[in-house]
Amino acid sequence: VTEATSNERLWTFAGGDIGAFRVLQTVSVCGATLPDVTRLNVFSGVTPKGAAAVAAPGFVLRGVVSNERYATRAEKKDLVQAQAAIGRPEAQHGALIPIKKNAAWWALTQDERRRIFEDDSNHIAIGMRALPAIARRLHHCRDLASAEPFDFLTWFDFAPQLRPQFDDLLGALRATKEWEYVEREVEVWVER
Amino acid sequence: VTEATSNERLWTFAGGDIGAFRVLQTVSVCGATLPDVTRLNVFSGVTPKGAAAVAAPGFVLRGVVSNERYATRAEKKDLVQAQAAIGRPEAQHGALIPIKKNAAWWALTQDERRRIFEDDSNHIAIGMRALPAIARRLHHCRDLASAEPFDFLTWFDFAPQLRPQFDDLLGALRATKEWEYVEREVEVWVER
Repeated sequence: VTEATSNERLWTFAGGDIGAFRVLQTVSVCGATLPDVTRLNVFSGVTPKGAAAVAAPGFVLRGVVSNERYATRAEKKDLVQAQAAIGRPEAQHGALIPIKKNAAWWALTQDERRRIFEDDSNHIAIGMRALPAIARRLHHCRDLASAEPFDFLTWFDFAPQLRPQFDDLLGALRATKEWEYVEREVEVWVER
Repeated sequence: VTEATSNERLWTFAGGDIGAFRVLQTVSVCGATLPDVTRLNVFSGVTPKGAAAVAAPGFVLRGVVSNERYATRAEKKDLVQAQAAIGRPEAQHGALIPIKKNAAWWALTQDERRRIFEDDSNHIAIGMRALPAIARRLHHCRDLASAEPFDFLTWFDFAPQLRPQFDDLLGALRATKEWEYVEREVEVWVER
C-alpha cells in the first residue's frame, strides 16, 4: 500500500491569520456564516509549503477542480476563448464564495439540472458577460471522502475597479431559478 | 475547526486477509492488476468497525456514491423500478470492478460524454437488461482529495447461478464505444 498523495486538482482555502490574502469582509448570503478571520491561505494540495502556514485556521475548505458538469462543446469553446486565468497581476481583489445546494437539487436528474442551470437560469450566458474581467475557478467538494460543509467553492479575482461588474454578476445569478436550490452561501472578500 | 468526519456516502474496499468476502480471483481486463489478496473488507466510511479489520491490506480503494451524471428522469424512473439493492441473501457472489477512463474521456464535454455513454453505447439500456438479477452500486473516486488509481468502483452482487448473465453484461459493455476510453479495468471476484 503506497502512501496517500494529493489529488493534483485539489485546492485548500484556509482561513486564519496567515496567507497571501487579507480578508476584507465575510458576508453570509444565506445560511450560517464562516468564522471571522484576518487572512486567507490558498494553496494547491492538502499541505501548504511551510508548516507555519497552517497556524490558527478559523476554517479549512477544500475542493477539487473537475470536469464541467453542464457545458456543451459550443459553450465550452466560447468560455475557453473568453476566460482569463486566476492570478493576473492587476487582479488584486478576490472573493471565495462557497455554496451548498439543497437535497432537492441533488435529487434531480442530469437533464433536469441542465434545464434549470442553463435553459431556465442562463448560468453560462450570465457568466460569459463578466469575461474576461472576472476570472473564476470552480472546485467541487460534495464527493470528497470527508463530510464537507459546502458542495462548491468558487474562487474569483478581478481588478479592484471592476467590483461593480462582479456585483452585477452575483446579483444576476442569485435572481435565477437555479439559486432557489442554494441553501448556504457565504462571501469571503479578500485583497492580495 | 471541527474534527473531520466521513462523507456518509463514502465506501471503502480493503483487499487483504480480513473481511466478509473471500476473493476467488483477481483479473486484469486492461492495465495493471491489483495485488493478490485472500479477503475483501467492504465498509461504509474510512474506518471499519474493529481495528483488526484493517490488518494487512493489499489495496485500499475508496469511492463516494453520488448523483447520477447521465441518466434522464425517464431512464432513472425505469432503473429505480427495476433495480435491486446490494446485499440480498441469495446474492452470495459479487465482483468489485474498478475502472479508470483516459484523459480523452475527461476532456469531453457533458453533451459529448452523454452521447457516447447512451446514444452510442446504450450503457443504461444494457444495464437494464441485467436487472433485477444483478445488483449494482457505483462509487466515484476521481474527485477525492487523494490521488486515486481509479475513477469509478462498481460493486455488484448476484446469485451464483446468474454468473452467465453477469458475464453477458460485462461483454456487452466492453464492446461499446464508451469502453474505448477505459484505460484500466480490474475484476475482483468474491464470495460471501
